[in-house]
Amino acid sequence: MRVLGIDPGLTRCGMGVVDGDVGRPLGLVDVNVIRTSSHLSVPDRLVTIERGIEAWIEEHRPDAVAVERVFARSDVSTVMGTAQASGIAMVCAARRGIPIALHTPSEVKAAVSGNGRADKAQVGAMVTRILRLDAMPKPADAADALALAITHIWRGGAKARIDAAVAVSRQARPAVGPAGVRR
Amino acid sequence: MRVLGIDPGLTRCGMGVVDGDVGRPLGLVDVNVIRTSSHLSVPDRLVTIERGIEAWIEEHRPDAVAVERVFARSDVSTVMGTAQASGIAMVCAARRGIPIALHTPSEVKAAVSGNGRADKAQVGAMVTRILRLDAMPKPADAADALALAITHIWRGGAKARIDAAVAVSRQARPAVGPAGVRR
Repeated sequence: MRVLGIDPGLTRCGMGVVDGDVGRPLGLVDVNVIRTSSHLSVPDRLVTIERGIEAWIEEHRPDAVAVERVFARSDVSTVMGTAQASGIAMVCAARRGIPIALHTPSEVKAAVSGNGRADKAQVGAMVTRILRLDAMPKPADAADALALAITHIWRGGAKARIDAAVAVSRQARPAVGPAGVRR
Repeated sequence: MRVLGIDPGLTRCGMGVVDGDVGRPLGLVDVNVIRTSSHLSVPDRLVTIERGIEAWIEEHRPDAVAVERVFARSDVSTVMGTAQASGIAMVCAARRGIPIALHTPSEVKAAVSGNGRADKAQVGAMVTRILRLDAMPKPADAADALALAITHIWRGGAKARIDAAVAVSRQARPAVGPAGVRR
């Protein structure tokens, strides 16, 4: 599956596309950061972000989009812009019917490094290793977007396996209802 | 001028359209509230809000859009959804090149009631009086959206008068530059 990870932000919005499945090596497809100037109005900055995300969805056709879950308790000076950018990211995907998942920063850190409180450098180092890159993706927003995509593939994989197991166990039990009534 | 006021929210997003100019009676064009169910995912709710705002801009063709400015210090449980909805509202207008203004709740309360700390009932009563309505618009989000549009016309009017005065004073002074050089 191909996942677009989005680390939302008004000044820098990271986008990372990863191909892969659980239990197999993951591959980097592309990574980028949409930057918007603080000299522009917030609406114009949000339109720039929307166009950037739209262009990437068009180009890379992801099967799913993973967005960082934003919390109100985050840094107050940037949280409103981050929330607005995350809303734009969700709408871009939802308009096209692409499944969206939100992952918290701790979930992402735990997934890629095994430590929910890992620092930026650790996350960047693990992303570099997992995707077998020559250098750490810069800036941190780029690495974070890739970490989101990796997290989504790994977590989604676990969920898909559970769903499959549930489906198999349902099939194993005889169906109850009109079709099973002996006449 | 025609102004679309938007009181952003994930559960209820108020939209009010007002026609008018400073110093002349204002008129209600239309008012509505987009409601989205909490049973839907946030991305789906945001898409519903986007479609509702898009449809209204198409139908009413406002000259300007006034959106309530959201603060991070607002109620934490709803502030993220409100921020996301406000981002969607801004993008809908900015994509079409419609000017956008943000007004704080205190600015709106002060503009319509003379008191920056007026309560919902007072704002609703003043909106009813200013627009000469038979009954108070319900719910409060509808009245708040109309109050935003009224505020924008009145504040925008003051700004337009200042801009006009500046333009006149510039014309009164002889132009400096190549065109004014005596040969």
